[in-house]
Amino acid sequence: MSADALRADIRRINTPATNGDRLWQDIVSTARFGGTDKGGVTRLTLSEEDRQVRDWFVDACEALGCTVEIDAIGNIFATYPGEDTSLPAIAVGSHLDTQPQGGRFDGILGVLAGVEVLRTLKETSTLLRHPVTVVNWTNEEGSRFSPAMMGSGVFAGALALDATHALADRQGATVGEALGVIGYRGEAKVEPSAFAAYVELHIEQGPLLEASDTEIGVVTGVQGVRWFDVVISGTEAHAGSTPMAQRDDALVRAAEIVLAVRDIARRNPPGVGTVGFVEVGPNSRNVVPGSVRLQIDMRHPSDAGLEQMESALQDAVLKAGAGAELKRIWSKAPVVFDPSVVEAVRGSAETLGYSATDVVSGAGHDAAHIATITPTAMIFVPSKDGLSHNEAEYTSPGECARGAEVLFQTILELDRR
Amino acid sequence: MSADALRADIRRINTPATNGDRLWQDIVSTARFGGTDKGGVTRLTLSEEDRQVRDWFVDACEALGCTVEIDAIGNIFATYPGEDTSLPAIAVGSHLDTQPQGGRFDGILGVLAGVEVLRTLKETSTLLRHPVTVVNWTNEEGSRFSPAMMGSGVFAGALALDATHALADRQGATVGEALGVIGYRGEAKVEPSAFAAYVELHIEQGPLLEASDTEIGVVTGVQGVRWFDVVISGTEAHAGSTPMAQRDDALVRAAEIVLAVRDIARRNPPGVGTVGFVEVGPNSRNVVPGSVRLQIDMRHPSDAGLEQMESALQDAVLKAGAGAELKRIWSKAPVVFDPSVVEAVRGSAETLGYSATDVVSGAGHDAAHIATITPTAMIFVPSKDGLSHNEAEYTSPGECARGAEVLFQTILELDRR
Repeated sequence: MSADALRADIRRINTPATNGDRLWQDIVSTARFGGTDKGGVTRLTLSEEDRQVRDWFVDACEALGCTVEIDAIGNIFATYPGEDTSLPAIAVGSHLDTQPQGGRFDGILGVLAGVEVLRTLKETSTLLRHPVTVVNWTNEEGSRFSPAMMGSGVFAGALALDATHALADRQGATVGEALGVIGYRGEAKVEPSAFAAYVELHIEQGPLLEASDTEIGVVTGVQGVRWFDVVISGTEAHAGSTPMAQRDDALVRAAEIVLAVRDIARRNPPGVGTVGFVEVGPNSRNVVPGSVRLQIDMRHPSDAGLEQMESALQDAVLKAGAGAELKRIWSKAPVVFDPSVVEAVRGSAETLGYSATDVVSGAGHDAAHIATITPTAMIFVPSKDGLSHNEAEYTSPGECARGAEVLFQTILELDRR
Repeated sequence: MSADALRADIRRINTPATNGDRLWQDIVSTARFGGTDKGGVTRLTLSEEDRQVRDWFVDACEALGCTVEIDAIGNIFATYPGEDTSLPAIAVGSHLDTQPQGGRFDGILGVLAGVEVLRTLKETSTLLRHPVTVVNWTNEEGSRFSPAMMGSGVFAGALALDATHALADRQGATVGEALGVIGYRGEAKVEPSAFAAYVELHIEQGPLLEASDTEIGVVTGVQGVRWFDVVISGTEAHAGSTPMAQRDDALVRAAEIVLAVRDIARRNPPGVGTVGFVEVGPNSRNVVPGSVRLQIDMRHPSDAGLEQMESALQDAVLKAGAGAELKRIWSKAPVVFDPSVVEAVRGSAETLGYSATDVVSGAGHDAAHIATITPTAMIFVPSKDGLSHNEAEYTSPGECARGAEVLFQTILELDRR
């Protein structure tokens, strides 16, 4: 055994261990707040169900001796004390709200794993140098009130508090009112400087980890997104009497673009490119298509990558010839997580002997906002069949336990710095 | 001048000439039967408008001294006598019915050019060896009663008379009844053996002649058609969180098939291949398509060509991998016209000094049925912008006149045999 391996072993043995069974019990038990007949959860933000799970969370943390603060947008900060009172907290967490007919893991896993970390600290009488704060961010999902990632957005200064309070749901209730109704419109002024780092454990919501039989995803950032529309105008013609050389078939040109989008993504790893929507006119078997509309989604972890993909798409559309038009209709910049926090996650998985791979989140997360103000990273655990926003969403007890262990190990790693 | 060219010149000088102006006047004048505001024609088969144009046709032919016979399916045969009463007639013609909002040329041009030939024979006191019969076939278009090419189908024995009489339109009127209503349920028993040959002049209904600036299309046959459905089952997935290597994108696979269909047609000239219909599931921008349905139309003048195209399509679908299924749902065998009648058309265009090219009809025609019982060919003249089944359908007076001249010259050529 090498000296390094020996040191890792010793460190592991000396680390108090989170309790996977206890975590799983919390997952099962909190799923009753908004639980559906099919084993899923409908727990829209700031609803009565959300109040119930928030109360449970506050009670659990207070029982562990935490200080619980609630800010004006309803974010909950439960802080377990550290040895050195001059140090900012290491923050972990995620969100307790769900999509309608959502799952039992999306969001809440990251909060419950934080609670499990605190329980472990408490039962082993471990005092870290830094305080540890477990956060529940308000309205990550964005299905009752838009936009999504609202609480973290306000906290990070990306959204103005007053304007956000004034946003209404379809019934006309505003965010401010809804916070009051469930008793979570707080007054705490938590400053970004209160955090030394932020680490969010979340299910992958994609198939990569499961497909590669990997236990832990070391999330290095969140992809940027650009949406495009392409309209191709060809010439509608009779499928029988129009020779191949006389055709201007809009669908053939569209097919070249569909393949180009795939090739562009492949040439720009880990970028992804998708043509998800196609509309053919007149869409009749024996008529050469006169027009095609495509909707394209391109994502890449870096701005440079997105630029390169967009420019290659422009070339592909140019190559498709006259009557092909490209429009960028929406975009969102990529987020790159802090390399040293990412390294702490990577090293923790290694220390624990779990298989791990770097991944970039395809979906948005609260961590994307927090990354703009605090050194941030994320930990992914596998999602069965890549399913999420779905009652069939599933991550096994073992997978959840490993996620919590890596989260704890990462906190210990960051605490040593 | 060569001896051949000299002979051609002499033949041309000695040929009585059809009158293009008179033909054009007939075209304009008969367009009033079912004429639309936009300069098109709606003259559904066996309608009152059809009766009017039939009556006009019968009157015109009787005025020229023709014998007019009407058979049980309403086909009209107007026969101008020949010198040798033992010889069968050279038949020409087409159809007087149109599509709803159809044009002024589709069908009727071939009948009116036949009338113009008879007028020319009459005014120049020319008696050919063979009789000349001008035919109007009932219900070529098939828009009121299905199937199309009904009259020629019954005449050629492809359709049974009694069953055809019993077919009903959307209002419940049968073919037999409708024939009675307009007075065109005849009793003549015209035998296929009554014809030495059949030549049909028609507008091209495609862009080839116009695009190549060619005056006459020498039609060598009618393409066979095969229709296919392809269903591709991939895996629906999140466009953001599903890496390229983990995807089974049904649309990407469909795009390969769209391009394969084009390539297959190009490799099998003069075949054509079209994907006219595409249905994507779930058809949402940020979801990797899970399923795609394609409708494919393939045509070729020869059975061997169709076989080769279908087999290449099978390969392409196989190459598209598991979850891609091909079904042939309909087919129609190609028709090859009689080489000696085709040669008569080709030679006639040459004699008259008109540019000509061999073409294969992409659409069906009465000639396709008649070819099964009588040596047959067709003559095409250009369609502006390839348009047909459209009120904007147009063939110029000069183009119509040249078609009639070639028709007459072909009759003279066949008459010499």
